Amino acid sequence: MNKQESVMISDKVHEECGVFGFYDNDGFDVARLTYYGLYGLQHRGQQSAGIAVNDDNTFHCHKDLGLVPDIFNDRILNNLTGTISVGHVRYSTKGGNNRENAQPLVYQYVKGTLALAYNGNLINASELREEFMKNGAIFHTSIDPEVMMYKIAQERIKTHAIERAVLNMMDFVHGAYSLVLMSPRKLIGARDPYGLHPLSIGKLENSYVLSSETCVFDNIGAEFIRDVEPGEVVWVDKDGLHSIKHEKALERARICVFEYVYNARPDSVIQGASVYEVRKAMGHQLAKEHPVDADLVFGVPDSGLCAAIGYAEESGLPYGKGFIKNKYVGRTFILPTQAQREAAVNIKLNVLKSSVAGKRVVMIDDSIVRGTTCANIIRALKEAGAKEVHMRVSSPPYLWPCYFGTDIPSRDCLMAVKYSIEEIRQKIGADSLGYLSVEGLKEATKALNCDYCQACFTGKYPMEVPLNVNEVDYKHTEEGKK
Amino acid sequence: MNKQESVMISDKVHEECGVFGFYDNDGFDVARLTYYGLYGLQHRGQQSAGIAVNDDNTFHCHKDLGLVPDIFNDRILNNLTGTISVGHVRYSTKGGNNRENAQPLVYQYVKGTLALAYNGNLINASELREEFMKNGAIFHTSIDPEVMMYKIAQERIKTHAIERAVLNMMDFVHGAYSLVLMSPRKLIGARDPYGLHPLSIGKLENSYVLSSETCVFDNIGAEFIRDVEPGEVVWVDKDGLHSIKHEKALERARICVFEYVYNARPDSVIQGASVYEVRKAMGHQLAKEHPVDADLVFGVPDSGLCAAIGYAEESGLPYGKGFIKNKYVGRTFILPTQAQREAAVNIKLNVLKSSVAGKRVVMIDDSIVRGTTCANIIRALKEAGAKEVHMRVSSPPYLWPCYFGTDIPSRDCLMAVKYSIEEIRQKIGADSLGYLSVEGLKEATKALNCDYCQACFTGKYPMEVPLNVNEVDYKHTEEGKK
Amino acid sequence: MNKQESVMISDKVHEECGVFGFYDNDGFDVARLTYYGLYGLQHRGQQSAGIAVNDDNTFHCHKDLGLVPDIFNDRILNNLTGTISVGHVRYSTKGGNNRENAQPLVYQYVKGTLALAYNGNLINASELREEFMKNGAIFHTSIDPEVMMYKIAQERIKTHAIERAVLNMMDFVHGAYSLVLMSPRKLIGARDPYGLHPLSIGKLENSYVLSSETCVFDNIGAEFIRDVEPGEVVWVDKDGLHSIKHEKALERARICVFEYVYNARPDSVIQGASVYEVRKAMGHQLAKEHPVDADLVFGVPDSGLCAAIGYAEESGLPYGKGFIKNKYVGRTFILPTQAQREAAVNIKLNVLKSSVAGKRVVMIDDSIVRGTTCANIIRALKEAGAKEVHMRVSSPPYLWPCYFGTDIPSRDCLMAVKYSIEEIRQKIGADSLGYLSVEGLKEATKALNCDYCQACFTGKYPMEVPLNVNEVDYKHTEEGKK
Amino acid sequence: MNKQESVMISDKVHEECGVFGFYDNDGFDVARLTYYGLYGLQHRGQQSAGIAVNDDNTFHCHKDLGLVPDIFNDRILNNLTGTISVGHVRYSTKGGNNRENAQPLVYQYVKGTLALAYNGNLINASELREEFMKNGAIFHTSIDPEVMMYKIAQERIKTHAIERAVLNMMDFVHGAYSLVLMSPRKLIGARDPYGLHPLSIGKLENSYVLSSETCVFDNIGAEFIRDVEPGEVVWVDKDGLHSIKHEKALERARICVFEYVYNARPDSVIQGASVYEVRKAMGHQLAKEHPVDADLVFGVPDSGLCAAIGYAEESGLPYGKGFIKNKYVGRTFILPTQAQREAAVNIKLNVLKSSVAGKRVVMIDDSIVRGTTCANIIRALKEAGAKEVHMRVSSPPYLWPCYFGTDIPSRDCLMAVKYSIEEIRQKIGADSLGYLSVEGLKEATKALNCDYCQACFTGKYPMEVPLNVNEVDYKHTEEGKK
Repeated sequence: MNKQESVMISDKVHEECGVFGFYDNDGFDVARLTYYGLYGLQHRGQQSAGIAVNDDNTFHCHKDLGLVPDIFNDRILNNLTGTISVGHVRYSTKGGNNRENAQPLVYQYVKGTLALAYNGNLINASELREEFMKNGAIFHTSIDPEVMMYKIAQERIKTHAIERAVLNMMDFVHGAYSLVLMSPRKLIGARDPYGLHPLSIGKLENSYVLSSETCVFDNIGAEFIRDVEPGEVVWVDKDGLHSIKHEKALERARICVFEYVYNARPDSVIQGASVYEVRKAMGHQLAKEHPVDADLVFGVPDSGLCAAIGYAEESGLPYGKGFIKNKYVGRTFILPTQAQREAAVNIKLNVLKSSVAGKRVVMIDDSIVRGTTCANIIRALKEAGAKEVHMRVSSPPYLWPCYFGTDIPSRDCLMAVKYSIEEIRQKIGADSLGYLSVEGLKEATKALNCDYCQACFTGKYPMEVPLNVNEVDYKHTEEGKK
Repeated sequence: MNKQESVMISDKVHEECGVFGFYDNDGFDVARLTYYGLYGLQHRGQQSAGIAVNDDNTFHCHKDLGLVPDIFNDRILNNLTGTISVGHVRYSTKGGNNRENAQPLVYQYVKGTLALAYNGNLINASELREEFMKNGAIFHTSIDPEVMMYKIAQERIKTHAIERAVLNMMDFVHGAYSLVLMSPRKLIGARDPYGLHPLSIGKLENSYVLSSETCVFDNIGAEFIRDVEPGEVVWVDKDGLHSIKHEKALERARICVFEYVYNARPDSVIQGASVYEVRKAMGHQLAKEHPVDADLVFGVPDSGLCAAIGYAEESGLPYGKGFIKNKYVGRTFILPTQAQREAAVNIKLNVLKSSVAGKRVVMIDDSIVRGTTCANIIRALKEAGAKEVHMRVSSPPYLWPCYFGTDIPSRDCLMAVKYSIEEIRQKIGADSLGYLSVEGLKEATKALNCDYCQACFTGKYPMEVPLNVNEVDYKHTEEGKK
Repeated sequence: MNKQESVMISDKVHEECGVFGFYDNDGFDVARLTYYGLYGLQHRGQQSAGIAVNDDNTFHCHKDLGLVPDIFNDRILNNLTGTISVGHVRYSTKGGNNRENAQPLVYQYVKGTLALAYNGNLINASELREEFMKNGAIFHTSIDPEVMMYKIAQERIKTHAIERAVLNMMDFVHGAYSLVLMSPRKLIGARDPYGLHPLSIGKLENSYVLSSETCVFDNIGAEFIRDVEPGEVVWVDKDGLHSIKHEKALERARICVFEYVYNARPDSVIQGASVYEVRKAMGHQLAKEHPVDADLVFGVPDSGLCAAIGYAEESGLPYGKGFIKNKYVGRTFILPTQAQREAAVNIKLNVLKSSVAGKRVVMIDDSIVRGTTCANIIRALKEAGAKEVHMRVSSPPYLWPCYFGTDIPSRDCLMAVKYSIEEIRQKIGADSLGYLSVEGLKEATKALNCDYCQACFTGKYPMEVPLNVNEVDYKHTEEGKK
Repeated sequence: MNKQESVMISDKVHEECGVFGFYDNDGFDVARLTYYGLYGLQHRGQQSAGIAVNDDNTFHCHKDLGLVPDIFNDRILNNLTGTISVGHVRYSTKGGNNRENAQPLVYQYVKGTLALAYNGNLINASELREEFMKNGAIFHTSIDPEVMMYKIAQERIKTHAIERAVLNMMDFVHGAYSLVLMSPRKLIGARDPYGLHPLSIGKLENSYVLSSETCVFDNIGAEFIRDVEPGEVVWVDKDGLHSIKHEKALERARICVFEYVYNARPDSVIQGASVYEVRKAMGHQLAKEHPVDADLVFGVPDSGLCAAIGYAEESGLPYGKGFIKNKYVGRTFILPTQAQREAAVNIKLNVLKSSVAGKRVVMIDDSIVRGTTCANIIRALKEAGAKEVHMRVSSPPYLWPCYFGTDIPSRDCLMAVKYSIEEIRQKIGADSLGYLSVEGLKEATKALNCDYCQACFTGKYPMEVPLNVNEVDYKHTEEGKK
């Protein structure tokens, strides 16, 4: 009946979070800019959102479960006065969707107050948490960033500055993370030494912005400066922008390739490459690898639309629409009961009968993860009169769980692990099925100025992955450790 | 700060309402089906929504301001038990956006209770209201359907059945309307004698559905039966579906052409024609009438997307995206202050720089009404590096106010009335500008099984239009009366 | 689980409503004064509340289910600008507790807009409603004042002024009512020709106030002027206060004696008599009629407190407390389940053990209606160690249903109809039981400047009472018609 | 406009909190019983409330700002399944009224989860907090119990059981506190070694209850067992009730005397003495110390009512009412603006004119703290016609700030510090003024089975009070340290 369930019936990998930070030097309305920033990052997390502001060293924070426009109103934003801010939108893969786990986390430590907005996943959080607790620590949330905050606080005692404490934290806390942190006088941003998640720096007049994605810079009229580098800690204070970098950081980021496949907004530029152009290139590549004689190319809204444009372009086949999506579906609604589902209640997507009837169609989607929805929509296309349905997937088969911030906890739920491609084709009822190859992916992403993590396709993880992460019962194979 | 303002900054014509009705013969959850029905009609009105159910002659109604998913929850739907229902979504052009004016209207009259959901606009409502009041009547809303309900109640005294009273009402109440009415034992649907607004009949197993648009039938798994005809009153009772028709009704409907241009969902079929296909045909026609040498064709989301596909197809130019729309924008959000707008806060649409930079682009939209947004988005395209912007509009210039249910109160607000096409081109900053011709529109709509009203383009109204309708100060010209 | 149920478990007669009106000549914040007025009348109705204001002939109204402080907030009050107002609090005995039935009712009629706040009960409402409907009228509520409004509108056509229409209405509409009505330029107040319900006129600087009770005048600093007389219509316009009176109106009001017994606030003065002093006098009289040797006198909170003070004073017995009431009980709370009730969950009243243990106590209450709670609280006193419990009731046995605005639909629910006093004593477990006599009531109310209706004690109704009022199945006896 | 302001205009000392705990052995609905328990403790804190339940070692917690009946509903209570619970109502003197600071606090520590509900004030919380933070600790609230929780967690590492950790905590954490703590398998209660705040043990069938006040036992049908002793830790587990006691604990509690003066409900029994009887005895004593010839005795509702009964009894003067209080005032309402206050808007209390006019009255209140309201109500009595107003206060002059859990931060705000009694009399406009003497207080409280802290009257604190507590700028005198 709620959003949670709505998410469950989707066949998409979910990104954990989006982060945003602002350091004002121009008298902007910091809370409102952060609000618009989070609005632009809403696709990265719909479960909770929050804004913390620093008003001359007094911190105010408002956060709750729900979507950005539902959580904030004029009165609340008016009360969030300040000159530095951090903001967060959250999709919860760990820790449960309750109010305590909403971010930013605001903590008092020995040097005052800190507010943390965090995107990622730690692989040694449980061990660290246990270790802290053995020394008497108490935790009020079940989420990783509280562990990280604890370590930062401990490191701060041993060093002279908060940015140094953040850098030292990287020695202990392992995993993938991009974070924005607000201290009494600074705005800090950091990416893990592998640079798995994006974080970019922007400038609005004389003020600085940090954001998970650059699309937000366009929303608020800011200019893109550069990406934060792997293992880099940047901070803004009254003297401007500064930076230090962890000694073990990679030279080139190992960005999560799924940002290009699905997570990021098409109008973001990550590591030098336009997400839209990469997706279109995936479509081009896919058309080269899996051509087919057909009458119409379309994408599954919204995840397959960009690649479909590329496929159509490359193949010369007509581009069109195969589905109409209810544009109010972003919000919580009452789901059909099982009985109603059998009675064919379908609120989200309608097949565009007049478009597909009598045609041989190519349907593009970005990925098949659990495979729960493909069969349904292909059946609907056939019922609407499509003569042939050729499914094309703009990424390679999803074979390995992700430990770095998405909600794929085990191989058991992955369709491509359990079945061959031909078996999948039969199960989903397609007339043909083609995935983008790993080589094709490489070709399509050549505009990136970095390396990328494609462990979900290849099992080659950028760092050692412990067996007990996320309490996954899955047996870690040798292959995955290569 | 509210939806109202959000609507004001849009340059679109707004349809007044969507209606839905259900007569159960199979034990369906009537309230939930109505909920899904209204969800599928949400694009026709976002200001209020309501459902009334008839539980063995006891009527329950729940309605409020807001969107369908925000107004209803499980508990509320569970309380709405019954076997007949009517539902309504509303965009208010008259009567103010307050709770009293939400529909369905539920009234007691001499034969029990009636619930009315109504889409349209009456041209003699004020006169009728005044006449009733001179005889002592009292009105608790300021909206037209209360007047209609009053007349139906009065006619019911003189005749033997509610459907006959509805038919007789048509002799007195003039204008454009599609209505769904629930009496103690019947579900009734009717269209005005001109058939200006759509209303279709569907069937789900042995149960009957009435809906403003057919897309809803797909949502709930119902089968399309036929359109209600102009001046026809249909009703469903325990003996099935029945019909009578007004003697002065047109043979062929004079459907509002703007349903195809903008109002309806692309996956609806109205008067035999797929809205999507008509829009694509408009794009084809537009490409024939206004070709241009360019590198990219795209539509303004979402109103120009279908025609852009047609334009690209006809012209052979590459189809792509020019903008990315924030998909959470359907809901209420806090608007930027004027200062923030100047600072370029832009939450709704981002230009897709990588796509348009260095290119000559063709941008398609469905219409230019007030012209408030075109200049902004063309400027944004140029700032993003577009070399040329060729605007194409998939309908003729909007020149005449609509009296039949949209929010165009006077000619003063219409851009094409005040300026020549060349002047408009200069004002919006386009490198070229082309509108679909009235003849082209005719070609594009040839799949319709009826005539259409295009008075907004030609000033030729299907019925006599009084000068004082909607208290418009505009001087009715001879031309408009032809 | 809701308020409704909470009401059901109470053994009190419920008054229907409280009304308030304000005509500003001094620049007061009319909506806020009305808000405070309704707050002071909250005891007269807790189911819905509303305020309508007249801002230079534009009417704004806000009303909802719930308590006054829950329905209104600063923003809402700020939007209710105007110079005339009417307000209403409601306890629903008829028409159901839904939002449509909340008052004030705002209607448009031939001369503009009217807003009505009404307290009372009509005995021929159904007949009138049916008659109107036979002529084609439609009703959107199931409550009496809509019928009254209709008649006023019809009379207005035949006469020259709204106040005259109100007066003429009295010829057709029978029952008990006090009303406040707002027209485009006037504030009108009226009482039925019997004067069964209270309505008083106050003055605040140069502005006028109408209120069901005078306690409100103290709340807002207004001065009491006089009561509206039976069958009188008063109105305030720019020329000040005016009055006309119905020719068949009683000279002296026949005020409902239950206002003194239970309904009104002790700090109100009705028809020249302080409610507090009358209640104390009832206690004095009761002590004279039913003396007893005891150690402690206390009242059942809050209904028996004033009479207990009088009883203690007259008898010379010590006054004290027997119960402590949870002072947060005014609001909705989750009721215990049956199982929990058996497990003795008691949220509302706690016996004050230290006070009653080992003592012979006199417990005073204002009335025994259904007798549902007496037995419980006497048992609780005994369990707490009270040696003897002598119950004294400060009004005569309640024997006849009320047709004029309380929720006593039939004799079947009245304990004193079914049982003798000795039987009642046994059933409630008291050691002795004494009611105030009809003569004693007369003595206690001698400060009133009018007659009173005590039909609930005597069956002598002030007007003819039809058998089918309120669809009561109770057989009207000859005795009741005398 | 909010509750906060409403509190500010009151002249009462505010208690910090109420706590409740339940250990079920009978299959009770634990959450609902806790709900009723908190409802009965609502007078101890109206700013936030919360319930945590332990469902076989899974903890669920729901808490929010507001009153108990507004925070919880059926659905929420249904989700709070479990067999152990702790509950809390809060009035915030420290830490701000925000959601983070609501209790119970739920934390994970080395042995699982703990939930803490706490009533009191620590005098070395800042020092402890600082010390923890110097070792790298982070705090997510600004309230004392988080510090206490931290210390308990640290002690738990060094000892074998949670109850022992609580006992050891008492060596480090100084101040006044009563707490209820829930561990994975136990319900624990504790009072500080001085026993400054109350905490009692009750039994409901085979289940155990802990509560700040015994009135709650009556609400839920539980039987009072005994008070928790000073410095005692009690716990309930599957083997029943157990106890250990701190070696430095006082033999007899030093209970806060203000529980009897104002804080507690009259129907509670604390340390063997009925609060109601103690208050009445204060009235008796006051009548002996400050007799006066008068016509009427009444209390200021609700704080002076019990003592007024005692005063009237002792003096032989007639007892009555001087004011009527709006019984809906417990909830948040919109406060009058300054202008409206001048215009005499008075929503809370109305003088009962008919009762006081022409009389010499004795008005009893429990205390004069800041003296903000006395002058107003005495003026109102005079305006209503009272000939003489003799104010009697049922406690000694309030001279010293409280460090143990009330909101009296400094001497500066205390009227009796700044003015002599004669000056106070003049300032409030009374004809005479008498306070209960310290000796009289002793006489009135002789039923207590313990000593009491009356430092607010005498400056003799039970423990050393540091100068910087609560960041009070007040200079701590020698007198206060004696």
